[in-house]
Amino acid sequence: MTEKLSTQPYKGVRDFYPAEMAIQQYIFSTWAHTAESFGFARYDASVLEPAELYRAKGAENEEMVNQQTYTFTDRGEREVTLRPEMTPTVARMIAAKSKELAWPVRWYSIPNLYRYERAQRGRLREHWQLNCDIFGIDDMATDVEIIALAYQIFMNFGATDDMFTIHINDRQLMHRLYVALNLNEEQILSLTRLNDRRDKMTAEAYRLELDGITGDGTVSEEVIMLLDKSDAQTDVVVGLAELGITNVVFDKSLARGFDYYTGTIFEFKDTDPDNNRSLLGGGRYDNLTALFGGEAVPGVGFGFGDVTMRDFLETHDLLPEPIISPTVVVAPTEPVHNLSAQKIAQALRSSGVSVAVDSSARKIGKKLSLAGENLSTYVVALGEDEIASRRYTLKNLVDGTETTDTLENLIDYLTDKY
Amino acid sequence: MTEKLSTQPYKGVRDFYPAEMAIQQYIFSTWAHTAESFGFARYDASVLEPAELYRAKGAENEEMVNQQTYTFTDRGEREVTLRPEMTPTVARMIAAKSKELAWPVRWYSIPNLYRYERAQRGRLREHWQLNCDIFGIDDMATDVEIIALAYQIFMNFGATDDMFTIHINDRQLMHRLYVALNLNEEQILSLTRLNDRRDKMTAEAYRLELDGITGDGTVSEEVIMLLDKSDAQTDVVVGLAELGITNVVFDKSLARGFDYYTGTIFEFKDTDPDNNRSLLGGGRYDNLTALFGGEAVPGVGFGFGDVTMRDFLETHDLLPEPIISPTVVVAPTEPVHNLSAQKIAQALRSSGVSVAVDSSARKIGKKLSLAGENLSTYVVALGEDEIASRRYTLKNLVDGTETTDTLENLIDYLTDKY
Repeated sequence: MTEKLSTQPYKGVRDFYPAEMAIQQYIFSTWAHTAESFGFARYDASVLEPAELYRAKGAENEEMVNQQTYTFTDRGEREVTLRPEMTPTVARMIAAKSKELAWPVRWYSIPNLYRYERAQRGRLREHWQLNCDIFGIDDMATDVEIIALAYQIFMNFGATDDMFTIHINDRQLMHRLYVALNLNEEQILSLTRLNDRRDKMTAEAYRLELDGITGDGTVSEEVIMLLDKSDAQTDVVVGLAELGITNVVFDKSLARGFDYYTGTIFEFKDTDPDNNRSLLGGGRYDNLTALFGGEAVPGVGFGFGDVTMRDFLETHDLLPEPIISPTVVVAPTEPVHNLSAQKIAQALRSSGVSVAVDSSARKIGKKLSLAGENLSTYVVALGEDEIASRRYTLKNLVDGTETTDTLENLIDYLTDKY
Repeated sequence: MTEKLSTQPYKGVRDFYPAEMAIQQYIFSTWAHTAESFGFARYDASVLEPAELYRAKGAENEEMVNQQTYTFTDRGEREVTLRPEMTPTVARMIAAKSKELAWPVRWYSIPNLYRYERAQRGRLREHWQLNCDIFGIDDMATDVEIIALAYQIFMNFGATDDMFTIHINDRQLMHRLYVALNLNEEQILSLTRLNDRRDKMTAEAYRLELDGITGDGTVSEEVIMLLDKSDAQTDVVVGLAELGITNVVFDKSLARGFDYYTGTIFEFKDTDPDNNRSLLGGGRYDNLTALFGGEAVPGVGFGFGDVTMRDFLETHDLLPEPIISPTVVVAPTEPVHNLSAQKIAQALRSSGVSVAVDSSARKIGKKLSLAGENLSTYVVALGEDEIASRRYTLKNLVDGTETTDTLENLIDYLTDKY
């Protein structure tokens, strides 16, 4: 072997070294804990899905599958796709067991998702996304619940109401209002898609496209008045207020990209101008499992990406320092004591704390200072004297205090501490 | 859309419905907790890796990549492989940061791995595997540590010593013994590979192949005597005994498949005749990062599959009943109280327990019995009376007792309970 292999990961994906992984795990565990506190049960499936699952929705999806997903043919001539989103998978799973499930179903998952992005756009090809859904019920209180869950996630990360705003709209209501302006179905669809981009456009550019849709300047002005008038409300906004959630805006411009939403739609937006973006989005749908036949399954849900979550936490300084070192380091003065150090470590672990041995060839002084640099809390130096006397010194690296005692007493001490 | 889509997952992968997912999460969290108690830090990488990472080791690997992995060409003409094992990935990551890491490095990961298996063999194409490694040190006490970690995993699942046996061998020692029998390098490699299959062969079949390797019946008999003689020991076996780990066999037949092991090798085997198989295996290697250049990185590690782990736990009846339901169910007597129920649920969650609303259209009696069937601990029925009086009844579904009180007092009650 003469040529050296590259140590780079595949283009567009991330290596998670321990410090990065600790942040990722902190995000995932807070997500999981919050969803479970609302009675949501976790599910998952493989990254590999039959390509038909994504092609099925028609020509537009055919193009999406061919150009934006990882799709390949396996040796059994099956077309396989690396899942680009979780919704088709969960619809498939729900449809398969629709007769056995106890409705309503509250499910969450933290899948990794794949998109084939052109490299020059600098976007990630793999990311993770929290998906939460309540299936099998069409009830305003359920819309309130799913938004309250998303809100609680922010609270559990230590966020405050001023850091984000919850934008809410209702597709049914908007449809009625547009029909009242004599817009037809095709115009309504185009207008919904245009509104999805409104906050990224100048007023002039928006008006130009709007006129193209309505074909009538007067109607365009009525549309703009309708969107900007702040008097409309929904039961969902009122319900959230009853739960004390008030950083809410009823936003008639809110459109959301996915066509399958049929009722309430919502989006959380960062209020910090440095991170001026949508944080998570979701909505209500009539029948997610339509493609699989059987009874209609209504529901409401949202998706929340790991990169977006992390950007929010960094923007608002809410990320704690990741701790990736053991609580206690046992540091033998010489490698000949490494096995004795393993025995001490094993005993100390019975207190419930994490313990590692510094079995390197470093000098003892270097071992002690390294334990401190790595943010371990305690260090036990182990030499001839300690082994002979069976009394060990537990040094607290935070406050500098020392406790010299038998192993049994040190275990009791650590057990009480944690 | 006339044709219905299949609800089946892709061939050879599993859907994880909540009950299955709860078991998977129980296994993963016990793995993670045990590894962290030994001071191991978690890492991960993408499922997608450059195909070169697996081809690099030579012609044999070329064949493995082509025939046994998922490898495809992306639209940028890069060859991508879904990782079939974690070792090349971790070697890549270690090599990339070898100058910055504080040695020795203790790392673990729980990756999902992919193998292209022919469907008729009925084997899974995706599984998860705990990988634990200590890098950067060649010391017998480290071999003891990694085996003690694997042992502790079994203890943390409630296993006892009689349920499994730890088989240990030493490639260097065996090499010396074989050289003493005048076997050459090629014969030693063939013999090692043969021994890897010995416990699945009859004595006759083994002897036949052995004679083919040695070409000399007398030498074959010397090999068999050597393998079956129980007097040999290693420092590792002695070290484990010092930690109180004694369900250990020094097994000179133990070979392990991977060529990169250079010292201690080990395998945990189930003692139950119904699950007579290898549970996990690992060993010591001289230089895992050789392909990437730079300084040699020795280490010791093991891999442990999720399916194997679960089979062991089921065989020995060590799997707890998975709990996937909330602790408390708030059951409104009518859907009109669903929003009030959300308020009660939100308040009760502040005690730290999980709370869900049964927002279905079921009758209240059915809601109460369903909460019991789903193994929730408490139920709160919510009707006109409770809303008017602001006093709610928390019914314990396990012992049938009831507590009627204000929300504040019920929260205190639940907070004290958990």
